[in-house]
Amino acid sequence: MPFIAVHLYEGRTIEQKREIVAAITEAVVRTAKTSPEATEVVIHDIPRHNWAKAGKLASDS
Amino acid sequence: MPFIAVHLYEGRTIEQKREIVAAITEAVVRTAKTSPEATEVVIHDIPRHNWAKAGKLASDS
Amino acid sequence: MPFIAVHLYEGRTIEQKREIVAAITEAVVRTAKTSPEATEVVIHDIPRHNWAKAGKLASDS
Amino acid sequence: MPFIAVHLYEGRTIEQKREIVAAITEAVVRTAKTSPEATEVVIHDIPRHNWAKAGKLASDS
Amino acid sequence: MPFIAVHLYEGRTIEQKREIVAAITEAVVRTAKTSPEATEVVIHDIPRHNWAKAGKLASDS
Amino acid sequence: MPFIAVHLYEGRTIEQKREIVAAITEAVVRTAKTSPEATEVVIHDIPRHNWAKAGKLASDS
Repeated sequence: MPFIAVHLYEGRTIEQKREIVAAITEAVVRTAKTSPEATEVVIHDIPRHNWAKAGKLASDS
Repeated sequence: MPFIAVHLYEGRTIEQKREIVAAITEAVVRTAKTSPEATEVVIHDIPRHNWAKAGKLASDS
Repeated sequence: MPFIAVHLYEGRTIEQKREIVAAITEAVVRTAKTSPEATEVVIHDIPRHNWAKAGKLASDS
Repeated sequence: MPFIAVHLYEGRTIEQKREIVAAITEAVVRTAKTSPEATEVVIHDIPRHNWAKAGKLASDS
Repeated sequence: MPFIAVHLYEGRTIEQKREIVAAITEAVVRTAKTSPEATEVVIHDIPRHNWAKAGKLASDS
Repeated sequence: MPFIAVHLYEGRTIEQKREIVAAITEAVVRTAKTSPEATEVVIHDIPRHNWAKAGKLASDS
């Protein structure tokens, strides 16, 4: 606890993911008063053809 | 809001996904009285060897 | 299969939920070529103070 | 996009949630190069009797 | 790692949840070769009026 | 019902997944008093560069 699932468009580099998870973890530890060791973040890479807004795939926008 | 996560067997074409997200969005907008722009749909493509019913992988059925 | 998780603001009536799940199921069965019996929909009722956009809780907007 | 689901023990105040979603959104916008308006955060309040580690409910620890 | 989210009809007692999370954890540790300490289980209690099969709420069946 | 989502590091073989879903299903059917046919398990294979603990990607640890 806590467990944070992040849904993002795929395509981020490992270096970007390194920054994203570090920043989210720092934000959660600071504001939710948890320990870093107890904080897990999972990234779901979602292709643009699997994400829709207003009924349209992001790959079509 | 709303956010809809759809878990499906992988293998649908982009054209099928286009129809699936359009139909789900139309259904949710009409019945939940939301706006299309606020409605997001994400598809999780699940391989048959990652989905089980009755303790058996779908790829084994 | 399929499994659809719908995240909505809490407050819908049972009658509205009845319409939402019926409409989503019809949409998925028609476009994803699944059977109604295999199609499950779960609604997550999310309080407005648990949903944020642009860093602000919906209950503050 | 992005959509962030945060699973936390229930019991946080609205003021704490306000800080948590603001901090997570700032972290994601800065590192994943998204816009605040496109960034949604949902909090799942999980009772301690619904969360287990090492096979034991947190309410029993 | 691993993180297991269990969606169940609400209504289980704490004692039943104690058995469910212990049994799932034992199953995962044994078959996925993980450590108990790294294995987390979260239960989502879903009301029957929030779960549908074949387009019908479980509370209507 | 029930629906169980398992988040694991990717890399398990089909044979391991066969054992994991069988063991989880047996555990849930026995303790939650459900039927095998109603019990579905989905595995999310998560790359180590998409999973962080204490703000560090598992692929960096």
